[in-house]
Formats: sequence, C-alpha cells, structure tokens
Amino acid sequence: MAAVEKPLLFSYFRSSCSWRVRIALALKGIQFDQCPINLIQDGGQQLTDEFKRVNPMQQVPALRIDGVTISQSLAIIEYLEETRPLPPLLPKDPIKRAQCRMLSDHITSGIQPLQNLFVLQKVGDGKLEWAQYFIMKGFQALEMLLQETSGKYCVGDEVTMADLCLVPQVANADRYKVSMTPYPTISRINEALLQLEAFQVSHPSVQPDTPQDFQA
Amino acid sequence: MAAVEKPLLFSYFRSSCSWRVRIALALKGIQFDQCPINLIQDGGQQLTDEFKRVNPMQQVPALRIDGVTISQSLAIIEYLEETRPLPPLLPKDPIKRAQCRMLSDHITSGIQPLQNLFVLQKVGDGKLEWAQYFIMKGFQALEMLLQETSGKYCVGDEVTMADLCLVPQVANADRYKVSMTPYPTISRINEALLQLEAFQVSHPSVQPDTPQDFQA
Repeated sequence: MAAVEKPLLFSYFRSSCSWRVRIALALKGIQFDQCPINLIQDGGQQLTDEFKRVNPMQQVPALRIDGVTISQSLAIIEYLEETRPLPPLLPKDPIKRAQCRMLSDHITSGIQPLQNLFVLQKVGDGKLEWAQYFIMKGFQALEMLLQETSGKYCVGDEVTMADLCLVPQVANADRYKVSMTPYPTISRINEALLQLEAFQVSHPSVQPDTPQDFQA
Repeated sequence: MAAVEKPLLFSYFRSSCSWRVRIALALKGIQFDQCPINLIQDGGQQLTDEFKRVNPMQQVPALRIDGVTISQSLAIIEYLEETRPLPPLLPKDPIKRAQCRMLSDHITSGIQPLQNLFVLQKVGDGKLEWAQYFIMKGFQALEMLLQETSGKYCVGDEVTMADLCLVPQVANADRYKVSMTPYPTISRINEALLQLEAFQVSHPSVQPDTPQDFQA
C-alpha cells in the first residue's frame, strides 16, 4: 500500500482565514501537517519568492492536498466538503445552503478583507478606527441576518461553514477592541461554538507557531 | 396551475457584483425582473430603511427567488447552480471546482471589496491610487493563477463562475484606469468572454437603469 501524504496547511496562528480552515479540518477529523508562515517576521515570510510559488496572492491559508495547492479559505472548505463529506459543513436544503454561503461570504468578502493586515498597513494612521468602522458595519448587518437564519448556531442547530467564519471574525473584533454589546446573537453563537473541541484545538492560542505571549 | 413569480433582482447597472449575477441568469436562461437601486442618487438608495429590510448589508445584488431573498453574488450563483443546474457554471471534477472557486474568491474577496464604492468613499483623497494599488496587486496574482488553470476561459474551455467574476472586475480596472498590458492572460480571456451573448445582454451599458451617458 502506497503511503498517502498528509495534507499540508500553510498557515499563521493569528490569521482568521487560516483558523477557518483549521476548524474544518478538525471537524472532519482530517490529520494534517502545518507549515507556519509568519506574516510579521523577516518583513513577512509570505512575501518570499518561495511562498509566491505556493500562493501567488502571498496570503495564508493555502492547503496542499491530493496533489494540488488550493488557496482561499472558502474554496478549501468547499473542496473538503465535496471530497470528505462527513460530517457535513453545509445543510442539505438548498435554501439553507444559500443562507449558509450568504453569511460566510458576508464575513469573508464584506468584513475580513477590509481589516486584514496588508490593508491596515496601507491605511497607516487611523487603522484602528478604520478596522472598527468596517467590523461594526458588517456586524450590524450580520446580527440582522442571523435573526432569520440562526438556531443554536448560524444556520439552525448544526455547525456549518458560516460558523467557521463567525468565530475567527469575533476574535478579530476583540483584537480591534470592538464592543460586542450591540450584537447579542453573534455573541451567543460565538460562545456556544467555543465550547466545541474543534474550535478549541484550532484556536490561535494553541498552534505550533503560537508565540509564548499568545499561549492560552 | 398557480402563477410562478419571476425572480426579482435588486441591482445597479454599474455594480460589478450585480453584473456577475446578471451573467449567471442569462447563461441559465432564467427570466427575471429587475428593481434598480441607484447607489448614487438620493445619497444612495441602498441606504433606505426599505432596502435595509431587503438586504441588511445595504448592498446590491440581492435576488428574491423561490420565496426567499439571497444576497452575496457567489451565494446567489451557487444557489442557482444547485436549483437550476443546466448549463453548469462549475466543472464536474472536484479539483477543477476548487480552482474555479479559488479564482472566484480571489476576485470577490481579494480584489473587489477593496475598491468598492463605500470603501473608496471612506478612503477619500487618494482613492484612485488606492483602487489601482489593490487591483494591480490582485491581477498580478490572478495572472499567475490562470497560467495553471486556464484554457480558452479561466478554468479550461468551458465558461464557469470564475469567468462571471473576471469580466466585471476587468471593467472596474478600466474604470480606475489600470493598464492591462501586464496581464495578457486576463485580457485574452476577457475578450473571448465579451463575445458571448450572456455577457453582452448583462453588460452595464444596456440595463434598464443605464443612464444615457453610459449607453453603448
């Protein structure tokens, strides 16, 4: 029997997009190796020519799996869902699937890109206020959308892809000192999810590249 | 036989995210009505309380279909794909599907959000240079990614969801005066796609809300 190579995740402990994928891998029980890419050290290890060949966008995460390298967290999660379907991360009902993808895209296209590291570097002065503005604007809408879709979690009572986006985004909100008081539904779901093992083992505080200061 | 309501698309002629969905509807031959939301007039018609009930994120597009309203262009396109599968907008092979979603997310999360209207309003002075910076950074990576995935179009020789993202993004690049010379693959695919009827009937220059100055 030929040895099957374990998937290799290029990630950074504090990257919210990497965390989404780590949760998916944990929920599906997929063993993987990590190759840490430090986004700060050496001026940003993602900017090397070597990493540019892994991901031309010079961002984490990227997952080497089944002989190819995939970047973009949701594309990775959808691929895992199609090739390793159990347990499912998308509901069965087409309308609920659409709501799950809508909430996921709302976070991954509508909030996170506006407060990620390389954008805030470009903003320069005023970057804390900038990050807060876009997170609060996005959370106001998310709180309303969740009134329609949520049960125990973002879409009904099962963990879905949208939950994998929500928890890391709340951690970013905390990092940028956004008060969560106006968002009781987001807060409630976040707390429920953080009780689950897959969200704990994938947490930024317990990764192989987590510096001592950030360890739980 | 009960009358079946036609889907209703809330859109704006010049919104690149709306254009993606118009192409999908055209390719799949789905008849729909449009409700124009003028993002400029009256300080932005997307900001009204009435539209906030349609889409709390106060953005277009949103599609009212099958009794629900879905926002986020890729969530809408994936829903159309699951409920109206022909002609397909995703390849059959899981790895090609992943590449298609990776390219789509690269544009919809990695490029477009950084140059959309409400972000540029926040940037204020220097917004042209800001838009150009993020489009060029994104296109450099996209050009490299397409070396691996493209045939006649973004993924092989069939039109896919990634193509629905590419053409409107190239139109945005043109709007912000980005030279396309460094991106021969993107340019070639864009030109091939613009020959197709679905990309022509959905074009910003021929929509019900296109002002006279923008008409073809």
